[in-house]
Amino acid sequence: MTIKDIAAYCGVSTSTVSRVLNDHPDVSPAVRDQVNEAIQALHFVPNNSARALVSTRSTAIGVVSRGVDNPFLSSLIRVLGREIHDQGYTMVLHQISTQADEIRAAALLEREKKLLGVIFLGGRFNYTKEELEPLTVPFVCCTYTNTFGDLTEDDYSSVSIRDEDEAAKAVQYLVDRGHRRIAMILDDPADYSIGQLRFQGYKRALAAAGIDYDPALAVFTGDYAMDAAYDYTMRLIDSGADFTAILAISDAIAIAAIKALTDRGRRVPEDCSVIAIDGMELSAYTVPTLTTLRQPAEEMALESARMLIGLIEGTAPHRHVLMETTLRPGDSVADISA
Amino acid sequence: MTIKDIAAYCGVSTSTVSRVLNDHPDVSPAVRDQVNEAIQALHFVPNNSARALVSTRSTAIGVVSRGVDNPFLSSLIRVLGREIHDQGYTMVLHQISTQADEIRAAALLEREKKLLGVIFLGGRFNYTKEELEPLTVPFVCCTYTNTFGDLTEDDYSSVSIRDEDEAAKAVQYLVDRGHRRIAMILDDPADYSIGQLRFQGYKRALAAAGIDYDPALAVFTGDYAMDAAYDYTMRLIDSGADFTAILAISDAIAIAAIKALTDRGRRVPEDCSVIAIDGMELSAYTVPTLTTLRQPAEEMALESARMLIGLIEGTAPHRHVLMETTLRPGDSVADISA
Repeated sequence: MTIKDIAAYCGVSTSTVSRVLNDHPDVSPAVRDQVNEAIQALHFVPNNSARALVSTRSTAIGVVSRGVDNPFLSSLIRVLGREIHDQGYTMVLHQISTQADEIRAAALLEREKKLLGVIFLGGRFNYTKEELEPLTVPFVCCTYTNTFGDLTEDDYSSVSIRDEDEAAKAVQYLVDRGHRRIAMILDDPADYSIGQLRFQGYKRALAAAGIDYDPALAVFTGDYAMDAAYDYTMRLIDSGADFTAILAISDAIAIAAIKALTDRGRRVPEDCSVIAIDGMELSAYTVPTLTTLRQPAEEMALESARMLIGLIEGTAPHRHVLMETTLRPGDSVADISA
Repeated sequence: MTIKDIAAYCGVSTSTVSRVLNDHPDVSPAVRDQVNEAIQALHFVPNNSARALVSTRSTAIGVVSRGVDNPFLSSLIRVLGREIHDQGYTMVLHQISTQADEIRAAALLEREKKLLGVIFLGGRFNYTKEELEPLTVPFVCCTYTNTFGDLTEDDYSSVSIRDEDEAAKAVQYLVDRGHRRIAMILDDPADYSIGQLRFQGYKRALAAAGIDYDPALAVFTGDYAMDAAYDYTMRLIDSGADFTAILAISDAIAIAAIKALTDRGRRVPEDCSVIAIDGMELSAYTVPTLTTLRQPAEEMALESARMLIGLIEGTAPHRHVLMETTLRPGDSVADISA
């Protein structure tokens, strides 16, 4: 019994049966049901014999994800896992804390698991050539580039958004609605990572709008934890600082900030507006709905997986893809310009 | 250069160095920094030679997770990944949609990836012996048992909560606060899964409190999607049904229900109370804070990984562990008994 028998039994192509087996979305429900019924009726268990024959070759692709509680990264991992599997490879997932070093984790993993390549999620932007020597397989930086490091464009691939520009866009959105006292809640201004670039974008947009940067309105929580974001927003409010809007570095941080504002009796958006960068599903259902710049998470993950497989199979060179966010309007920003 | 050299250089044990390398939490920051500095100064890359020597043996443990957008499962996967890795195995993660069949996915994966065992997350409760024949390695059901199937206790292991009892507990919490018109939002009443058991618990608790079950208050969304939960809650409100409280099958569903209530001008908890079962971090920061029965997610994942490794290594028999939820009180339930 092979996949061909199932295809013949159902009168469909073998690739259709394969798509059903791999739980692909692009099969009609009727065909899916028909194939599934045939599989059950015939007690078919696919053997993937073509793959079994070459199974001495490693199929392992490492995914090293930094920031374990980040729901944005979870959605990327889901898409990576599906694409890697569908292309005949195996995802070896390694999730590390924000404080851990993803390069060392990947170098360890490469040896232990015979990796063919690595996709990094949520890492630093300052890799050096020397530091990367232990890693001998190709890698793709997903969600970031090497802005602060000394790698050349031919050393690695990347899929990212323009973090500085996107943060500036978020600030401009607030400025356009009359806000001039704008706070920002971010992790660390000197982490050589997303936080640093978005902080630069915040300051650049303020300067462009003729607004002096006020250090009292820049809140550094140290990491991406919601409890820290809540506590630091409380402190900002209790400091008596004057602000009418907050830019949060992520949706989860924005939700924690809205909670702190609410617990201190400030209404969002009437007393304070909040905008973020991320676009997770859940923040579309919070009260108020969060206004946020949505990152194309699925597209970023898919592009990263395809890039790495192209590198592994030698069919594509290193590339650097920049994607755009899209504004997902919510109810968390008020226009106070009138 | 080996791990022993690093240990000697730092004057610590090799197991301490190992813990730092594996990003274990139980190392003091001072020792962690010292070891990391030594590793960088000596340009050490661990070779894991003991493992490399036996690398022809598979180390793969499959984790088949059903319900790809479920944030509760994401937190389980993170803990599973860490424990499996720390014990010298490799997690092969396969995430499938709620509609897909986890048994077939696992049987496929077992052949492709030479799995030693499988951990299922979020599956059905009605496996049959015949259906499981293709799966030849031990498996653990994490978050569920085989209530509706014909497996015996020696056929598999499980870690779960008592879903029926926990749903009854949530209803009783509402009844104790004066609620008698209680709606429930769940996926499917006949899915042989968590939904069915929690629905039974809901009806049992109503009966115990002398409240007639009203089918108009049982809302079946078909799956766990937030958009469906939002739409169905809207329909429930618009139907004119009389209710003062909602039990949601998960935190995410509760958040979508609160959004629908709010968008229809009903305040939570003043006009309608909401309680859920899950206990995700984010629902502690929604407005209002969600009252929920928190599942011990980390403990469930850790126990499942250890169980399966015990089975693989032949050091433990099949076991069935039942865990308890704990009430995480929020601001989403009002006492209307006065």
